[in-house]
Amino acid sequence: MTNYHNDLILRMINGEKTERFPVWLMRQAGRILPEYRAIRGKLSGFKELVETPELAAEVTIQPVDILGVDAAIIFSDILVVPEAMGLPYEMIEAKGPYFEKRIRSEADLKTINGTVSAADNLDYVYEAIKITKRELNQRVPLIGFSGAPWTIFCYMVEGEGSKTFSKAKRILYSDPKLAHTLLDQITTVTIAYLKKQIEAGVDIIQIFDSWAGSLSPAAYSEFGTKYVRRICEAINEVPVTVFAKGAYYAREELAALDCQTIGLDWNMDIEESRKIIGMDKTLQGNLDPCVLYSDFASIEKSTKKLLNSFGNRRHIANLGHGVYPDTDPEKVKCFIEAVKAHSIN
Amino acid sequence: MTNYHNDLILRMINGEKTERFPVWLMRQAGRILPEYRAIRGKLSGFKELVETPELAAEVTIQPVDILGVDAAIIFSDILVVPEAMGLPYEMIEAKGPYFEKRIRSEADLKTINGTVSAADNLDYVYEAIKITKRELNQRVPLIGFSGAPWTIFCYMVEGEGSKTFSKAKRILYSDPKLAHTLLDQITTVTIAYLKKQIEAGVDIIQIFDSWAGSLSPAAYSEFGTKYVRRICEAINEVPVTVFAKGAYYAREELAALDCQTIGLDWNMDIEESRKIIGMDKTLQGNLDPCVLYSDFASIEKSTKKLLNSFGNRRHIANLGHGVYPDTDPEKVKCFIEAVKAHSIN
Repeated sequence: MTNYHNDLILRMINGEKTERFPVWLMRQAGRILPEYRAIRGKLSGFKELVETPELAAEVTIQPVDILGVDAAIIFSDILVVPEAMGLPYEMIEAKGPYFEKRIRSEADLKTINGTVSAADNLDYVYEAIKITKRELNQRVPLIGFSGAPWTIFCYMVEGEGSKTFSKAKRILYSDPKLAHTLLDQITTVTIAYLKKQIEAGVDIIQIFDSWAGSLSPAAYSEFGTKYVRRICEAINEVPVTVFAKGAYYAREELAALDCQTIGLDWNMDIEESRKIIGMDKTLQGNLDPCVLYSDFASIEKSTKKLLNSFGNRRHIANLGHGVYPDTDPEKVKCFIEAVKAHSIN
Repeated sequence: MTNYHNDLILRMINGEKTERFPVWLMRQAGRILPEYRAIRGKLSGFKELVETPELAAEVTIQPVDILGVDAAIIFSDILVVPEAMGLPYEMIEAKGPYFEKRIRSEADLKTINGTVSAADNLDYVYEAIKITKRELNQRVPLIGFSGAPWTIFCYMVEGEGSKTFSKAKRILYSDPKLAHTLLDQITTVTIAYLKKQIEAGVDIIQIFDSWAGSLSPAAYSEFGTKYVRRICEAINEVPVTVFAKGAYYAREELAALDCQTIGLDWNMDIEESRKIIGMDKTLQGNLDPCVLYSDFASIEKSTKKLLNSFGNRRHIANLGHGVYPDTDPEKVKCFIEAVKAHSIN
């Protein structure tokens, strides 16, 4: 019942019969494309691109034109949320994100904005969504996104990437009350942010819990799923996808969320995941991004094997993680073409 | 049938009835102890400590005296193996290991020693083991160790730590023949190295596959388990423990290895792991190291919960990862005491 020229991904998410599996890639708008690098190269940095709606819209649409994916995903970063709450970040080339100000105590909490009004600081995202929708002109649906509260919490406490996230985890164990207060505030802001993305026009929401795998099952249940659940319950306007990387142990709990799609990383077996999650959800994933370093014949073979494991069940083809920046776009096209050539019977 | 004052861990590994669970910690010899930092502070760096047998022996024994663990583990590093093969490493403070020379091609392979003779370059380890054994004077058994071939391969290709190990994985997908040749050579050297550790006196071998979790189930089977299996089959003199961090998906395959103990990380549910692995193996683990950031009462409670999940089955209490350097030794003692206070009925 949509006006999209290609609404395959929405039909798949809704559990309708489709002729083939829809396909897109996490991080499809980005460094793999020379057309992206041409735009990015003219700017002061990554953040200027995120914060300039016309350019963010342009790189969002590039993979639709160049790669032929079945959905666009708005070009942005999960870290705009902590910035909107009062922790500015820098993106340091070849190193990653860096926050000068971090949250380590009750007193630090008092210096940030943990209310819905923080979402008003992200007008550049909503503007980029509006421009993208206009320029996509109903070709494919547009995905909006946010980080999950636990993952955002990690950055707000650590201030940068980490192998163990032990500073963030330390708070869960040493001061669970502080942890819950901050997670609650992040959740509140995230819901307001996603509602505004939906108002601006996104058709699907994806929640990225990139560091879910750093927690034990009990800790993820208490500090992770709890807040993802609140987001899922608050977002009813469009379908929601939850991608909790590494949280294989929580698949049963994720299956009970009020969301339509569950993302799988490449460690997770498709058949086993289907058995655990059941038939009521669409699954998304999960080719290892490194398979795209193989030759064309091997990529086709691996993709076929993946698609066969989907059977005729609800599935969106994707990688099990964002595409790596040194991947040849021709190899990405090979993956996409292999998905498109495969009929569901 | 041993002469140890405390042979609890050996009896548990052998499947004998014991009065309580044995306990030790990965990285127990190290920065958590002020006594370790006092010795380390007088030296040029971490490597000098690894390469000075008298001092390596001294820090190996410290946790037996200070913490009261049921086993010592020789103070060393998994990266001595690539160094013995011809890739010297530096340990950069607060950053981690760094290799100037790396393996990326067939030609690079020709510059290293992938034969048993490479193990002759590690006399300082064997000497440290001999001194430790003498000074331990039968108090507790001594654990020797190595990295698993896949994990060593990661460092030899990447030359440093990585979030994705995508350079190492690239070779698996783009040049599987080169990957197998290097993995085969690492395996050959590792077996020779472990045999010499056993000759020098270690009572147990542990194989650390720290980056197992970076691979898909199919890739880990082809490039990971295959070589761990060869090591397990070659080592018959003492019991072997395999700790493949993140390879929850491979537990069935690991259960079939010719080894006595399987290490579990803190993501892995104990009951589920027991069901998958069966009753014929001893399990080891798996408290989240961050639980040791809690207060004493919470540590006791979490430890009790863990021990209850072991039931009366074969289990060695440990963390699910190495103890983090900023952990209070009193909290570590609290964990150890809680294990010792718990009777198996």
